[in-house]
Amino acid sequence: MSERYVRVGLEDAKFIGGFWGNRLALIAKEVIPYQWDALNDNIQGAEPSHAVENFRIAAGESSGEFKGLVFQDSDVAKWMEAASYSLLSFPNAELERTLDSLVALLAKAQRPDGYLNTYFTVARPDARWTDFSFGHELYCAGHLIEAAVAHHRSTGKTTFLMVMRRYADYIDSAIGPEEGKKHVYCGHPEIELALFKLFEETGERRYLSLAEYFVDERGRKPSFLKNEPTFSGPGKTTWFDLDYHQAHKPVREQDSAEGHAVRAMYLYSAMADLAAETGDPKLASALAKLWQDTTRTKMYVTGGLGSHSVGERFSLPYDLPNDSAYTETCAAIGLVMWASRMLLLGPSREYADVLERALYNNVLSGLSLDGKRYFYVNPLDVAPRLDEFRSDLEHVKTERVQWFGCACCPPNIARLISSLGDYVCTVHSAASTIFVNLYAEGEFRVNLPSGAITLREKTNYPWGPSIAFTVGPEKESSFTLALRIPSWSKTYSCRLNGDPFAGAFSPNGYLLLTRSWRKGDSVELSLDMQARFVYADPLVREDAGKLAIQRGPLVYCLEEIDNGPDLHAISVSPDAFISESYDPDTLGGVVALSLEARRDDTSRRPDYPYDSVAPSTHPVTIVAVPYFAWCNRKPGEMLVWIRAGSPRPSS
Amino acid sequence: MSERYVRVGLEDAKFIGGFWGNRLALIAKEVIPYQWDALNDNIQGAEPSHAVENFRIAAGESSGEFKGLVFQDSDVAKWMEAASYSLLSFPNAELERTLDSLVALLAKAQRPDGYLNTYFTVARPDARWTDFSFGHELYCAGHLIEAAVAHHRSTGKTTFLMVMRRYADYIDSAIGPEEGKKHVYCGHPEIELALFKLFEETGERRYLSLAEYFVDERGRKPSFLKNEPTFSGPGKTTWFDLDYHQAHKPVREQDSAEGHAVRAMYLYSAMADLAAETGDPKLASALAKLWQDTTRTKMYVTGGLGSHSVGERFSLPYDLPNDSAYTETCAAIGLVMWASRMLLLGPSREYADVLERALYNNVLSGLSLDGKRYFYVNPLDVAPRLDEFRSDLEHVKTERVQWFGCACCPPNIARLISSLGDYVCTVHSAASTIFVNLYAEGEFRVNLPSGAITLREKTNYPWGPSIAFTVGPEKESSFTLALRIPSWSKTYSCRLNGDPFAGAFSPNGYLLLTRSWRKGDSVELSLDMQARFVYADPLVREDAGKLAIQRGPLVYCLEEIDNGPDLHAISVSPDAFISESYDPDTLGGVVALSLEARRDDTSRRPDYPYDSVAPSTHPVTIVAVPYFAWCNRKPGEMLVWIRAGSPRPSS
Repeated sequence: MSERYVRVGLEDAKFIGGFWGNRLALIAKEVIPYQWDALNDNIQGAEPSHAVENFRIAAGESSGEFKGLVFQDSDVAKWMEAASYSLLSFPNAELERTLDSLVALLAKAQRPDGYLNTYFTVARPDARWTDFSFGHELYCAGHLIEAAVAHHRSTGKTTFLMVMRRYADYIDSAIGPEEGKKHVYCGHPEIELALFKLFEETGERRYLSLAEYFVDERGRKPSFLKNEPTFSGPGKTTWFDLDYHQAHKPVREQDSAEGHAVRAMYLYSAMADLAAETGDPKLASALAKLWQDTTRTKMYVTGGLGSHSVGERFSLPYDLPNDSAYTETCAAIGLVMWASRMLLLGPSREYADVLERALYNNVLSGLSLDGKRYFYVNPLDVAPRLDEFRSDLEHVKTERVQWFGCACCPPNIARLISSLGDYVCTVHSAASTIFVNLYAEGEFRVNLPSGAITLREKTNYPWGPSIAFTVGPEKESSFTLALRIPSWSKTYSCRLNGDPFAGAFSPNGYLLLTRSWRKGDSVELSLDMQARFVYADPLVREDAGKLAIQRGPLVYCLEEIDNGPDLHAISVSPDAFISESYDPDTLGGVVALSLEARRDDTSRRPDYPYDSVAPSTHPVTIVAVPYFAWCNRKPGEMLVWIRAGSPRPSS
Repeated sequence: MSERYVRVGLEDAKFIGGFWGNRLALIAKEVIPYQWDALNDNIQGAEPSHAVENFRIAAGESSGEFKGLVFQDSDVAKWMEAASYSLLSFPNAELERTLDSLVALLAKAQRPDGYLNTYFTVARPDARWTDFSFGHELYCAGHLIEAAVAHHRSTGKTTFLMVMRRYADYIDSAIGPEEGKKHVYCGHPEIELALFKLFEETGERRYLSLAEYFVDERGRKPSFLKNEPTFSGPGKTTWFDLDYHQAHKPVREQDSAEGHAVRAMYLYSAMADLAAETGDPKLASALAKLWQDTTRTKMYVTGGLGSHSVGERFSLPYDLPNDSAYTETCAAIGLVMWASRMLLLGPSREYADVLERALYNNVLSGLSLDGKRYFYVNPLDVAPRLDEFRSDLEHVKTERVQWFGCACCPPNIARLISSLGDYVCTVHSAASTIFVNLYAEGEFRVNLPSGAITLREKTNYPWGPSIAFTVGPEKESSFTLALRIPSWSKTYSCRLNGDPFAGAFSPNGYLLLTRSWRKGDSVELSLDMQARFVYADPLVREDAGKLAIQRGPLVYCLEEIDNGPDLHAISVSPDAFISESYDPDTLGGVVALSLEARRDDTSRRPDYPYDSVAPSTHPVTIVAVPYFAWCNRKPGEMLVWIRAGSPRPSS
């Protein structure tokens, strides 16, 4: 019997329609085929990938040169992971065959010693294991290992897993603390997460040890990274120093989120894996500090991380510019990964709140509603003409695009959503408690010592307030159903079999429903989904005097198509009433918000530049839509943080 | 008898104490000796100049390599211009000798054909006349010519003028419309201004013709600039295209301010010189459009121009970010130059208002109160920690520095202030009207057909409201004294010999006092110097919902030393009362302002990130000081645009 918090795995999570079920279906039916075409350069007008072709060349099945970025392999790996997980909910014989032949190709591309990387095989065979700062060699290995674990989990086939175990074993033979091995780690963490999953999947503790080695070695001084020619090569400025790689201090001494935001999230996720597995209090303590620093001083309201485009990195605390925000889709995905692992160190709604914030906002905005267009950068204030002119906004795309030369994000969203089952519930068996962290229409199977329990969940979350569970234990048994009450839900109510049921509200933000449960017991939780204005920490200079609109987990925005241009001219009173209406025909079905606001008269030019006459204003009704859904109709301006106007005069 | 508007020249303008008299004295006593030391690398800790040494090397008096930028000569030239003009008010035999020996050095460095440029003589003798986009060859020539004109105007000596006429004649022989000459112009306008001054000083019309040629040739398609290897060389991105050089269209077709802000100002100044001289209506019409576009859509409240750091250039209309503003000191100097020339096309207070705005704010902020520290970039929102971290704020210096590797600004301020006499009054002789555009303590001599008139002016402008003139015609005569009523002065009053005198307010913003004047007549104009909140055009997104404080021509700012850190947390009600007090001991004597405001409680962290609880606020008294004087006590945050809070509840 486990003394630990464990996930309900995606094998036991079935999404049936609803917000997430529909998105898992979109991934299976549209995104995975589309991305396969992209990886094979079959999308007209898209930036080329060459990623599959690189494997063919490495396998000797094709001739030509390696093309793309050094980490091009990882695009294929993430797609394989997404496709594998997707098979669990959407069996697809053709996709399975495609995966099988891709696995065969990878096996063929693998070197006799187990090494598998197309860039260093085809383009730079001389340079294997020489560029840990930017070579992404172990990063690519990690993604391939994660894909192999996914393939094994979903199909039971061992072909891919064996290929990747060979590679992992080879890595283990070449790198590690022992004399004669290289004492290194990858600039971009990922191998750590993969080795941990490989350990979980195979039970082989060598993989766990190697993951621990990589985490522990990081930040050792003097750093081997500084001796690499790539470390300070062309374009490598102060923003690419050791902190960029989170290698400025041993991880247990780190207390602030620094450097490349995706690297940071992956590292902290790996630290959380190890802290949960080993119980290391120093790791847990460092994670608590890093969590606080990240989510209280460096996170946008959308869950976006990494405001600084040069280095795709964290800036100083509270430096969260809205127009130049980098907020890479992958960083928000990384935050989801980290938050879900923090929940395994001990449940707290704060982790799940942040997970949800990132997932429903910055992650989802990375994907168009039809699954075929992507954002890499997700700012909170878009003004297309400026973004296209200004050098400091060069990184901003004002529309989602078909594919990227650097395409880390699109397949990362696909793998996250198709593995969303891993993120819904955590369980503490010894305490017989099921923590429901995310709400979604579906059916979830939980194993407790007393037997298996099925939770059927009916909800149109995040649109409606009601979340109804039908609890189905195999036989009557006593356990606790712990339902997260998000911090944005200022009130809630709960009914058991139709009658009010108070439960107990725990300090960590869960409503604890403890009883002896019988098959068919129904629980209905009602959350407070009232749209509200939210405010940033007053230290965030870019949001001072501004408000954003949030409804449930969703952050809203204004779009030009609904509100005209010059969105900055709009101000909203903090006591404005927000009307809600669910519109099934808009943006795939969303609750749109409308509210009374005022608009500066931008059509009236002042008599003199900088005169003492304040701009006149007029009343307008504005419409806000969920941030994730913006730019699915027509490109244009978009704004999350709106100026707070004066309170309405009391009449 | 002239049919035109002409300047009262600096030979006839004497500043006696007061705001400008003291600054002219500072330039003479502190700035000119300090800058001479800087140009000779005698300032400990300052960035090296090597500019004088380059001339010694070119003259064969020293060996070694050329060092510095291609336009290093112009630093020496501007200093010589400043020093020459300064001699008029502050005779200084030692300085005159220094100038004489420097002129002798230049004569020695001049090539036998008249050519004079240390970079192309010492470092790249092969490359003469090959790099007009970035070589600054004619730009340097222009500054040397302007210096020679200044030397001649102030000392009457012809030595320097002869040297530079030889160079101008050589240029005229090499470049021009005739067959066999090069059909080119300088990427950075300046030679045009210099040739016009040389024409005025010598009466030689060839110089006027060459200036006209340079202006007319600009923008001709296809552009020779595009064929230069330097045009699209390293680091030359889209922001350095033809529009960077204002060469995207013939000048008469230009209707919006584009490209490098200093280049633009110098070009428009040259266009205005020619328009005034030739009466060309197409030039005048283009200038009117350029003026409107510049001052209504691309000018900061401080008179700063050029918001975009890459290319030091104009951005799109109304794109005026406060923190990343480039707003180079030289661009504001250029605006003063242009505005003063627009006044010669026909007086309007709008030109003088803008001239004053640039002069009292963005220009003066470039110089510390002790004359020994300089700003090149003049943003309106400084937060030192961010400025030092963020890549998009790399160009911002958070303190004035001793000298710059690229030191165009410091001697440019020196030459502007020491030649300020050229900017005070314009005269229309035929209409017997004296236009007083700037107010300053001093004595100004004006020649009208009826005889010379002396205006003695007593004022402590810009601190006090009163400007008192004692009018001294040689003999009683009838003329009009036209006193500018700045647009910020919402009311005014005027007395003649102690009695109220209405005069006539002209549509172009001058109070016209027409009468038969007798020696000793006194006029006292009282302006409305009440400090007021001013507002940007509502299309300026960065200033929406914000106000700035202006008193007379001075824009005010908040400094950390007076108001603590986190200035963004302050909001001011648009109906707040502003208290004024002149403090002779602060910042060299300024009117400081204090007002009631509110401050967000930045010490209180929210319970959850992005909670629906608005930050609490508390009342504070804030202190504002003139923008030009900021950072003369202690470095720290600075802010011009303050959030406008709610109006005070009426009680």
